Amino acid sequence: MGEKEHIKELVGVVGAGAFGTAIAMLLAKNTKVLIYVRKKSVVDAINKTHKHRGTVLSKDICATNSLQEIAERCTVIFPIVPSKDFRDMMIEFAPFLRPYHILIHGTKGFAINRQCVTGDGFAREDVNTMSEVIRQESIVLRTGCLSGPNLSDEIYAGKPTATVIGSKFEEVIDIGKRFLGSENFHVFGSHDLIGMELAGALKNIFALASGILEGKQLGRNIQAILITRGMMEMIYFGKAMGASSSAFLGTAGIGDLICTATSVKSRNFRYGKLIGEGETKASLEKTFPLLAEGVRTLRIAKRLADHYKLHVPITKILYEIIYNEYDVQKAIDYLMRYPYHVDVDFL
Amino acid sequence: MGEKEHIKELVGVVGAGAFGTAIAMLLAKNTKVLIYVRKKSVVDAINKTHKHRGTVLSKDICATNSLQEIAERCTVIFPIVPSKDFRDMMIEFAPFLRPYHILIHGTKGFAINRQCVTGDGFAREDVNTMSEVIRQESIVLRTGCLSGPNLSDEIYAGKPTATVIGSKFEEVIDIGKRFLGSENFHVFGSHDLIGMELAGALKNIFALASGILEGKQLGRNIQAILITRGMMEMIYFGKAMGASSSAFLGTAGIGDLICTATSVKSRNFRYGKLIGEGETKASLEKTFPLLAEGVRTLRIAKRLADHYKLHVPITKILYEIIYNEYDVQKAIDYLMRYPYHVDVDFL
Repeated sequence: MGEKEHIKELVGVVGAGAFGTAIAMLLAKNTKVLIYVRKKSVVDAINKTHKHRGTVLSKDICATNSLQEIAERCTVIFPIVPSKDFRDMMIEFAPFLRPYHILIHGTKGFAINRQCVTGDGFAREDVNTMSEVIRQESIVLRTGCLSGPNLSDEIYAGKPTATVIGSKFEEVIDIGKRFLGSENFHVFGSHDLIGMELAGALKNIFALASGILEGKQLGRNIQAILITRGMMEMIYFGKAMGASSSAFLGTAGIGDLICTATSVKSRNFRYGKLIGEGETKASLEKTFPLLAEGVRTLRIAKRLADHYKLHVPITKILYEIIYNEYDVQKAIDYLMRYPYHVDVDFL
Repeated sequence: MGEKEHIKELVGVVGAGAFGTAIAMLLAKNTKVLIYVRKKSVVDAINKTHKHRGTVLSKDICATNSLQEIAERCTVIFPIVPSKDFRDMMIEFAPFLRPYHILIHGTKGFAINRQCVTGDGFAREDVNTMSEVIRQESIVLRTGCLSGPNLSDEIYAGKPTATVIGSKFEEVIDIGKRFLGSENFHVFGSHDLIGMELAGALKNIFALASGILEGKQLGRNIQAILITRGMMEMIYFGKAMGASSSAFLGTAGIGDLICTATSVKSRNFRYGKLIGEGETKASLEKTFPLLAEGVRTLRIAKRLADHYKLHVPITKILYEIIYNEYDVQKAIDYLMRYPYHVDVDFL
């Protein structure tokens, strides 16, 4: 073990799903990584074989099933768990966290505020981004998120890409760049944390929709229009929820959307493709056990759209397709006739 | 022949390439079409067999090799010829054109001003869009363009898409909508004619670049980033040349770019893919006889970038790849290390 090895800081990752594992692999190019996995058998497999998800991991990645150990040994931690589990994870994690911790999450979805009892008629204050959940449930102040066109399979294969670290704190962005950046992984910084989180969550809706067009074999022309108009609907949501347009037009906005909405390596796109091929949400519950984030985000977004009276026809009709089995062809006909009078109106 | 048949207006199309033919087919859903083709043998084939480019044409499409006949029988005309031939076509066409003619072109490229003798150091006044060429070379006042994610093969197959008609004249937009619109072809309108023409021309550069990444099999993540940053470079060009950001963010901007830069049905993308696979401009001159528009636009854009001192690293390094056989891998390494400090700076 060389001298350099000794001074490497230990960085934490919470969650060893596809993306959490990809982030651990990127971190391991620069530092040592401790990854939290709930299952003891997976922890042991990672520590013994250095293999996970069919991929060989760096020997600089170790696993633990103790959140306490993560908190005690790591200052910088990347929580990357599904949005539906994020708040519960934070509640479990919080007792071990201190004000010096830095949490940069990689979760693309929304959480419902604990104060919201109805579950209906969501307004901005009922819907939280993950950085808000971190602030609500723990003493941690310095939060950030990472988002961009980051299909995990391509990161495993060492293919080049970029991400954006969003944070109010320059220090968090600098730390993210230092630990994550490498010759094949460019890290941008942004201070528009909320805009980036909204973009990251909402884009999964349009990845679903684009997948449906793929399943119906309707071609790239209409997919490109869907992505363009999807970006606009994302901006309308963002404006209603207090974000500027800018995050939606960058790497973590349209960049991530283009990637997720045109690749079968995206889980949301694949889910949509199956819907386009004739499956339903009910039929997919058996074969697609790990629900695509977009399906959950869509339900929340539909209620936000109703509350803010937004003109987001794609979001609304997609909700009918997924949740009420509305006919896909009828939905497309409806959108083709939708009276869009102007092409760009958000600037 | 029914009564409705008699009142159909005859609309002209100049050029029977892939896109000209697609536009003729769309027009023929609403009206009668006269298409100009230079070669007599092609004219005869279309009029006798109603087949062209391996596709069955509507019987409402007839062909002629007389520009005079097009001008005399049609008020509304869609010129769709390669940018390098556009001015010569207009010079030939002009003697037959009258102030009542309406020309909506579908050509995505630039023309060099006749006053520009050096061919070097292009500024805005040396580089013309096709609507400017129409105004310079003819008496026609009411011009427009059409642009959007419109891969011809998908239009032939009847797959749904949308386009944008850009014109200063509401009347031109309305006429374009009336003749081109159908249940599978939505027509938006825009008054930002120049912005749309710049977007339409410049996007071919980034379709080339994206094709190179495809040829190198570098994945969808990096392609999505290329498209995002390509959109930004387009906006920098647009701003320097007097256009607003808006056209670049709509259906005819990012929409067209996404489509062209991710589909092998795009000629510019295919050209780039071959470069990525090891071909050169010289080697492709034999096998890719109909030069991709993007190659020509790239040369002009490079000079505009030098003149306006624009920070457009993708355009500049792509120029070196195509025109000076600069190593593709070195170019990618250079871009991955390019000191982009901010992600979105054009708003």
